[in-house]
Amino acid sequence: MVNSPLDPCFHKGDIRPFLVEGQQVGLIKSDVFKQLLKYPEVFCIRDCEYTKQGLVELNPAFRDYNERTAQLEKVLRDLRSDGLFSALQGWRDECFEVKSEHKALLKMERAATPLFGVRKYGVDINGYVRHPKHGLCIWLQQRSNTKETWPGKWDNMVGGGLSVGYGIMETAIKEAGEEASIPCDLVKNLVSAGCVSFFFESDQGLFPNTEYVFDLELPVDFVPHNADGEVQAFELLPANECMERVFTPDFKTTSAPVVIDFLIRHGYITAENELNFTQIVELLHVPLQSLYTYKTRLEQKLQQHQATLPNDDSNCNCASLPKRPLENGHNNKKEST
Amino acid sequence: MVNSPLDPCFHKGDIRPFLVEGQQVGLIKSDVFKQLLKYPEVFCIRDCEYTKQGLVELNPAFRDYNERTAQLEKVLRDLRSDGLFSALQGWRDECFEVKSEHKALLKMERAATPLFGVRKYGVDINGYVRHPKHGLCIWLQQRSNTKETWPGKWDNMVGGGLSVGYGIMETAIKEAGEEASIPCDLVKNLVSAGCVSFFFESDQGLFPNTEYVFDLELPVDFVPHNADGEVQAFELLPANECMERVFTPDFKTTSAPVVIDFLIRHGYITAENELNFTQIVELLHVPLQSLYTYKTRLEQKLQQHQATLPNDDSNCNCASLPKRPLENGHNNKKEST
Repeated sequence: MVNSPLDPCFHKGDIRPFLVEGQQVGLIKSDVFKQLLKYPEVFCIRDCEYTKQGLVELNPAFRDYNERTAQLEKVLRDLRSDGLFSALQGWRDECFEVKSEHKALLKMERAATPLFGVRKYGVDINGYVRHPKHGLCIWLQQRSNTKETWPGKWDNMVGGGLSVGYGIMETAIKEAGEEASIPCDLVKNLVSAGCVSFFFESDQGLFPNTEYVFDLELPVDFVPHNADGEVQAFELLPANECMERVFTPDFKTTSAPVVIDFLIRHGYITAENELNFTQIVELLHVPLQSLYTYKTRLEQKLQQHQATLPNDDSNCNCASLPKRPLENGHNNKKEST
Repeated sequence: MVNSPLDPCFHKGDIRPFLVEGQQVGLIKSDVFKQLLKYPEVFCIRDCEYTKQGLVELNPAFRDYNERTAQLEKVLRDLRSDGLFSALQGWRDECFEVKSEHKALLKMERAATPLFGVRKYGVDINGYVRHPKHGLCIWLQQRSNTKETWPGKWDNMVGGGLSVGYGIMETAIKEAGEEASIPCDLVKNLVSAGCVSFFFESDQGLFPNTEYVFDLELPVDFVPHNADGEVQAFELLPANECMERVFTPDFKTTSAPVVIDFLIRHGYITAENELNFTQIVELLHVPLQSLYTYKTRLEQKLQQHQATLPNDDSNCNCASLPKRPLENGHNNKKEST
């Protein structure tokens, strides 16, 4: 279900902020939390002043991007081999970066991101045709039955996650070639058209997603065909039929916002024909950038240029962590459990 | 300054919810609050559990839309004749509706809305040309020097507030004719393209605005001309020059989001050329529909179908209000001051 974390009922009491380097980058539900308790050398679990149930922080003693990445990966591989969390069965050996503001903190196996509710970024292309007879028509793809996620579901013509090391337009062009064999002379017509952000939740976990959307007007006679085995079919549908399909269980739920946004921007869904128009536009633009606002007192002080030691490590589970000198403002203390 | 009410520093301590029929429809700053204290028969001021400084509610004993409207209007005319609040000097005898969800609660003189921070709705048309030589070009208007607000500033080609009794497309077509003399054969090309929402603040007050945006592609040889005296000039600018002008003091600040949104949707501002792209998109879609969430305990109970009397009228200033029987769940009690 796609919902809004602005809703006051959103997960009352059942969820904890996930911090890296003193800044919130995600959210952890209780089923995941129970497993993370088994790794006190990796996850520091303690009280916090804003949530009754405390927070989870990646061990602040980890020195850098590479150490954070490696330590987390060990845990994730462990959880995967224990057969826990169906999301991890879709392991792709493809990493997504975890950032705070513009700083990359670590990278994480893509399949594991829903366990931590870290923001994910993707690219989607709305391929469309202005048909002389049928008017506005939209190309959809049907995902291959062997896809790790949403197999066999209908989807945007082209889409892909933003992997580490790849830019946004670069990803759009690459996916356009691989998924739909869009030739160079057509792909140059790609138009960046904004982004949609939403917060999806399933039994797999939490998906705060931002999709960079592109529009691509195609000639009437162009037919996409798949080159990478990830798509089993393409279909061109008039706008009204496309919208009907989007609301069936045959459509990948997390791709629906992209189609709806397209139809809004192109005047197909309007305030005149949709009573909840402004609310829908809001749900397509959930403020994920503002969402994760928890900062530890230390991080706040650092930002105010005060280099005092933190004293908010009480009730911390990091009993077995060795004491390290203060490095970059981070420290962890020995405490008895 | 256009800012985000999601920012935790937004008006710490200086602002109170404004309620009508138990639901929040606005915000009241302290300068306005001081004046409203003089009208205890119209504004009920009391403590509330979420804000230290209390809340302001329009007397819940007012029976209906018309009574609420009339009582409020008397206060506003009084404040206007006292010369208080520069916003009221722009009195237009044009009313905006105040709604909660889809229910209209009252209407209020347009010029007074920033004093109460009630959500306002408008319509804007992005007139543009695909110029064979200059590429994407955008028509801007320069507001007449006699306009009540932002006189002489540059603005979107066409725009207008949504007055009571007028629909959205209806307003767009009407304003297109009055402001820019767009003929019927061109106005039929209007394309609804979504909405932008932002929260602006000035010394005039609070402006949580939602603008329904329309795109209108115009032929190269069409020149708008004004019919209603509200516009002193039109100019067609290439996109880059348009964007430069938007960021000068010559441009109406509350129209900037409309131009920026247009340039994003048309691929001129992209994630590749703008570092803060996702944050900008968020600032163009501030969730105003979710913003005003305060509900009195009574309203919450009514929604849960419990018809118990409220007991949260303690510390209420409505000393002089006569007791009325419970009507539609609303009541006010005699209390000694």
